[in-house]
Amino acid sequence: MSSTYGEILKLSIFGQSHGPAIGMTLDGIPAGLPVDYDKLQEFMVRRAPGQSSYSTSRKEADKPEFLSGIVDGFTCGAPIAAVISNTNTRSGDYENLKTCPRPGHADYPAQMKYKGYQDVAGGGHFSGRLTAPLCIAGGLCKQWLEKHGIRIGAHISSIAGIDDAPMDWVNPDLDAIHTDFPVVNEEAGKKMQEAISNAKADGDSVGGIVEGFVTGIPAGLGAPMFDGIENKLAQIIYGIPAVKGLEFGSGFAGSNLRGSQNNDPYTIEKDKVTTLTNNAGGILGGITTGMPVVFRVAIKPTPSIAKQQQTINLKNMSNQTLVIHGRHDPCIVPRAVPVIEAAAAIAIFDICLKDGIIKE
Amino acid sequence: MSSTYGEILKLSIFGQSHGPAIGMTLDGIPAGLPVDYDKLQEFMVRRAPGQSSYSTSRKEADKPEFLSGIVDGFTCGAPIAAVISNTNTRSGDYENLKTCPRPGHADYPAQMKYKGYQDVAGGGHFSGRLTAPLCIAGGLCKQWLEKHGIRIGAHISSIAGIDDAPMDWVNPDLDAIHTDFPVVNEEAGKKMQEAISNAKADGDSVGGIVEGFVTGIPAGLGAPMFDGIENKLAQIIYGIPAVKGLEFGSGFAGSNLRGSQNNDPYTIEKDKVTTLTNNAGGILGGITTGMPVVFRVAIKPTPSIAKQQQTINLKNMSNQTLVIHGRHDPCIVPRAVPVIEAAAAIAIFDICLKDGIIKE
Amino acid sequence: MSSTYGEILKLSIFGQSHGPAIGMTLDGIPAGLPVDYDKLQEFMVRRAPGQSSYSTSRKEADKPEFLSGIVDGFTCGAPIAAVISNTNTRSGDYENLKTCPRPGHADYPAQMKYKGYQDVAGGGHFSGRLTAPLCIAGGLCKQWLEKHGIRIGAHISSIAGIDDAPMDWVNPDLDAIHTDFPVVNEEAGKKMQEAISNAKADGDSVGGIVEGFVTGIPAGLGAPMFDGIENKLAQIIYGIPAVKGLEFGSGFAGSNLRGSQNNDPYTIEKDKVTTLTNNAGGILGGITTGMPVVFRVAIKPTPSIAKQQQTINLKNMSNQTLVIHGRHDPCIVPRAVPVIEAAAAIAIFDICLKDGIIKE
Amino acid sequence: MSSTYGEILKLSIFGQSHGPAIGMTLDGIPAGLPVDYDKLQEFMVRRAPGQSSYSTSRKEADKPEFLSGIVDGFTCGAPIAAVISNTNTRSGDYENLKTCPRPGHADYPAQMKYKGYQDVAGGGHFSGRLTAPLCIAGGLCKQWLEKHGIRIGAHISSIAGIDDAPMDWVNPDLDAIHTDFPVVNEEAGKKMQEAISNAKADGDSVGGIVEGFVTGIPAGLGAPMFDGIENKLAQIIYGIPAVKGLEFGSGFAGSNLRGSQNNDPYTIEKDKVTTLTNNAGGILGGITTGMPVVFRVAIKPTPSIAKQQQTINLKNMSNQTLVIHGRHDPCIVPRAVPVIEAAAAIAIFDICLKDGIIKE
Repeated sequence: MSSTYGEILKLSIFGQSHGPAIGMTLDGIPAGLPVDYDKLQEFMVRRAPGQSSYSTSRKEADKPEFLSGIVDGFTCGAPIAAVISNTNTRSGDYENLKTCPRPGHADYPAQMKYKGYQDVAGGGHFSGRLTAPLCIAGGLCKQWLEKHGIRIGAHISSIAGIDDAPMDWVNPDLDAIHTDFPVVNEEAGKKMQEAISNAKADGDSVGGIVEGFVTGIPAGLGAPMFDGIENKLAQIIYGIPAVKGLEFGSGFAGSNLRGSQNNDPYTIEKDKVTTLTNNAGGILGGITTGMPVVFRVAIKPTPSIAKQQQTINLKNMSNQTLVIHGRHDPCIVPRAVPVIEAAAAIAIFDICLKDGIIKE
Repeated sequence: MSSTYGEILKLSIFGQSHGPAIGMTLDGIPAGLPVDYDKLQEFMVRRAPGQSSYSTSRKEADKPEFLSGIVDGFTCGAPIAAVISNTNTRSGDYENLKTCPRPGHADYPAQMKYKGYQDVAGGGHFSGRLTAPLCIAGGLCKQWLEKHGIRIGAHISSIAGIDDAPMDWVNPDLDAIHTDFPVVNEEAGKKMQEAISNAKADGDSVGGIVEGFVTGIPAGLGAPMFDGIENKLAQIIYGIPAVKGLEFGSGFAGSNLRGSQNNDPYTIEKDKVTTLTNNAGGILGGITTGMPVVFRVAIKPTPSIAKQQQTINLKNMSNQTLVIHGRHDPCIVPRAVPVIEAAAAIAIFDICLKDGIIKE
Repeated sequence: MSSTYGEILKLSIFGQSHGPAIGMTLDGIPAGLPVDYDKLQEFMVRRAPGQSSYSTSRKEADKPEFLSGIVDGFTCGAPIAAVISNTNTRSGDYENLKTCPRPGHADYPAQMKYKGYQDVAGGGHFSGRLTAPLCIAGGLCKQWLEKHGIRIGAHISSIAGIDDAPMDWVNPDLDAIHTDFPVVNEEAGKKMQEAISNAKADGDSVGGIVEGFVTGIPAGLGAPMFDGIENKLAQIIYGIPAVKGLEFGSGFAGSNLRGSQNNDPYTIEKDKVTTLTNNAGGILGGITTGMPVVFRVAIKPTPSIAKQQQTINLKNMSNQTLVIHGRHDPCIVPRAVPVIEAAAAIAIFDICLKDGIIKE
Repeated sequence: MSSTYGEILKLSIFGQSHGPAIGMTLDGIPAGLPVDYDKLQEFMVRRAPGQSSYSTSRKEADKPEFLSGIVDGFTCGAPIAAVISNTNTRSGDYENLKTCPRPGHADYPAQMKYKGYQDVAGGGHFSGRLTAPLCIAGGLCKQWLEKHGIRIGAHISSIAGIDDAPMDWVNPDLDAIHTDFPVVNEEAGKKMQEAISNAKADGDSVGGIVEGFVTGIPAGLGAPMFDGIENKLAQIIYGIPAVKGLEFGSGFAGSNLRGSQNNDPYTIEKDKVTTLTNNAGGILGGITTGMPVVFRVAIKPTPSIAKQQQTINLKNMSNQTLVIHGRHDPCIVPRAVPVIEAAAAIAIFDICLKDGIIKE
């Protein structure tokens, strides 16, 4: 198992959902970068559980304690380490999982890989809770990118088939995304929340799509083949639980277009090279074009549902039914939005370090 | 730039489209694996250009010459190196590209990154031709996986919006895929070919979707977070030119479902754990479930089209039109099928090495 | 900066000498390995400060608190994280170091690299204190190797030019090494301790050489070129502060011999392949021969001495003298012995994981 | 097995001594670096065999053919690949090695690792011949470093116990090293050559020590812990066959000194920070001090000797004697000098890329 990411920066994430603490180390960060703790906490809160009716009722402050790497509010060049203590744990809910794996969860493959030694309580290391340390690292990278004019934002593109208003890929207005429920169109947002409530009432869950943007990124970053922008974003974004799809720019829809429709014509605007459309999602040949990086992430419906499901008993090797108890989000898409921003920030920051854009 | 992939195996791809040769080194391969050269060549031919009316008229034998790593038909434990000489090059076609970048190509970002030093002839290192060495490595890995009962196959799921017949995700019949034009439904294949011909006649191009399968893979391979099956497949598949989307199992469509619909119920069948559906695409928590790995790859329409396009002149910083000459595929999707198989084979073989499934 | 080591296992070390805590994460460890906490603590104590007159008077319990990766005394497959709180810090001693760098310390190069943002208190991330988390990781790996019959041990080969009795490289008796002051010959040990006391009395310090052994390691582990046993041991051992030399087997002395003297003749002994001598230090071509791995590590005299020294003032750019206050070891060689064992254990364990010797 | 090195640059070396060709790929090199082919060839010649009576009589032109990565004499940003064809092979000499391993060679451990599939002809991938592609990569890096004022040089410090004149570690005069037989003191060089001739006449071999320097390197490069200058040099230098020891600055001798003797006092000289001595070998805490990097490499006597030796027969599991035929260097130290320079150049260039010193 490897919970480590990055080429110049080295992010290592640790912890299990119901263990003593979760946390991260972030190595390879230049010295002298300022840390805005309040801004980081605001970012953490966007992901934290217990904020609304559509998220789990488990409450965690999710306030990171920094153990190293920051002195007097500036990075000191040494690895940054931070932990979040787990306080609100209820391990009793999970005892049966080694025998009767939950459909759609990692229980069964984990049992096959770890042969019963895995920590099942709360999903262990597979828990969505591990996205909290990802947000510590990502929240810091996001701050530092902003100092260089690079902004990262995301909105819920759809939940349960209900679409938000489309955002402009050439000039996305990140400030138009609402902060509490991250959509552009409030009406659509309300319908999404209704759909979530309905699913919850049915003992069921819904999924959705998150659309992310990186703006202000200069042309010429990245690399062809295996270390391109798409590859690096994919490697980290597929590290977020429940992500099952990722596309850039016109993506799957673009594969139905003709070349003449999908190609983005170049133009000079105020002495600046730009494209009239952005079907490439800001990336050609793995390298940035200078247009916003645009990507869309498919998130499956939460597998933990109250409804009775069919599963197996691994001891008896027989079929049986399962009813899951415990506290679960009927839809994790809203909370996934900052997590996806965090993941993107980490990948883009690593690329900026490698390509010498950010030094200190 | 990094054209290197892998954790236990280390694949390094080199070459430019119109340079003396392209090739690859593949390090970290155990000693004692047999090499079937004929089978490899059959595989290479599936990707090779000049095979049909819908591919470029450039003809290359694409016969790899092995320089090291194989003795008497078996791997010897030393790095495998192979080269393919470039014979049929016409560099004159490409001179203008540093000044007038082609829409949808890497010309402009490459110019920004390499400041004019990049090799533009034939697309240089960005050329689809670099997928030939990927197929050498992937063709070998595919052979070796088959000896362990792991098969990799892919078909054209759609071209220009025309769908092939759906394949069964629980029990995909890889032998039902036709070898010349890789679809299951011949009628659909003919319509796709017509669509390609029509696009070509219009001086245009089309894209499509390729669906890949890994069958016979045991449960318990992979890892959570950043080194999971999805992450590793994504990192290499996004290294194939023109790939703009990737999804696993129900992917984007699944994000519209409810949990009760998308979860795959477990069942015991003949003392074997299986699932009734395979919306997870054989992967949960980054780890294989034992069901076939299923993934879909979105390929954009070939950016090189004969039609006049709008671009810019970087010397004058002015707008201008562009007509591209040269030999180009009106649709690369059919030739991308073996490339995607190759990429998947490399990723899966690396995972098998790491998890100790394959030793010699 | 990268404080991360390993190929299959990923060790990440964090912390500064006078920060809130130091610690480590250790990723990539198989599930199901037992953890003997008492044995680990015994190992930690061998390195801990404040044990004797020849080590710093700073007292730290050095008792790791495990945050993740271990459930009910067994590894669970998730990353292991552990921290040690820093309690006994006296930061006031170090304020002047950014201006007047101490000779033989990292103060000046750190100032040049981190431009004043580095944490200077207690040496920051450069402190020998960071070898405590190395010992957590190494102490665990040592335990697990022992379960596979692979033992790691080391003795002080010399301090201040006083030699311990030579150990047999073909059949080293690790149990003959004393536990309190790790030498084979107690008389030599007493003389070494006198030399340390004398140096201390003079406001000076002494260095020495540590000789390490890995016994019970099977033939055929490792790899030629850059991932050999020597390379991997060197990469981690040079991560220990004050190490300035490393040799394997006959090493530097062997370079004075003739081939006929230095070659180790093979022989069959009780149906087992062995060599009559072990000048190769158990390694040929980067791969183990099945003989004990033997290596020797040169440790410089502690740079922190009480004697007045010549240095510079970086503000004035003028020469000046310096007298160092604070608590320092007049000789770190005895405490370096377990640290070198720990480093070797981590490297060897990683190789065993890669070569499939240890799985769970 | 991994014959791959580097963090930003990725060097991959391939080939076996008597295979069709040996070569290397070098990825991650910035675009726009000029390539002086004549200078590279001069460098290659220093390592090439068949130059003198003390090297093997096997003659190889060792002229690299570049397949990619260079256009019109400048790097283009794509991976550089180069091959050297093997012409002068005599595989008949090596057939017996799988059964009767040569003492001091990798034959036996290779047999254990690769189970008989390894290429034994000429030492296969373990051959000193593989240092030729290392010299291609290193010769290029050396050129590029020189453009930034960073020079790399080395001399024979001793052969068979005969010492060259000591070089100044504070201001080493690299131009004082003779080019044909790389010593400073010609008299010492003659005695060394006599010692080699005597060993050869006795059917024996001798080893020695090479001392290397990196001058002009700025302060502040490198990193603490596992990615320091020492670690990175060690990882590549131990990849050179026959290297069994490595020390920096005063190294092993320094471990006998007191701190007051070994510490290098700082001083301001012409407004520049320097040290009066350079026992640190230009490195403190893994980071450059701005003084020359100084290191010494122990090279064992060539294991291939004409004298009869004792070995075993792995088929019979019995003891037997062995007489080695074939063409072998009675001393590889002179030819190792450029190889060590090459290895150092690659490591230092990688560090310069990582720390942003060299961009294009």
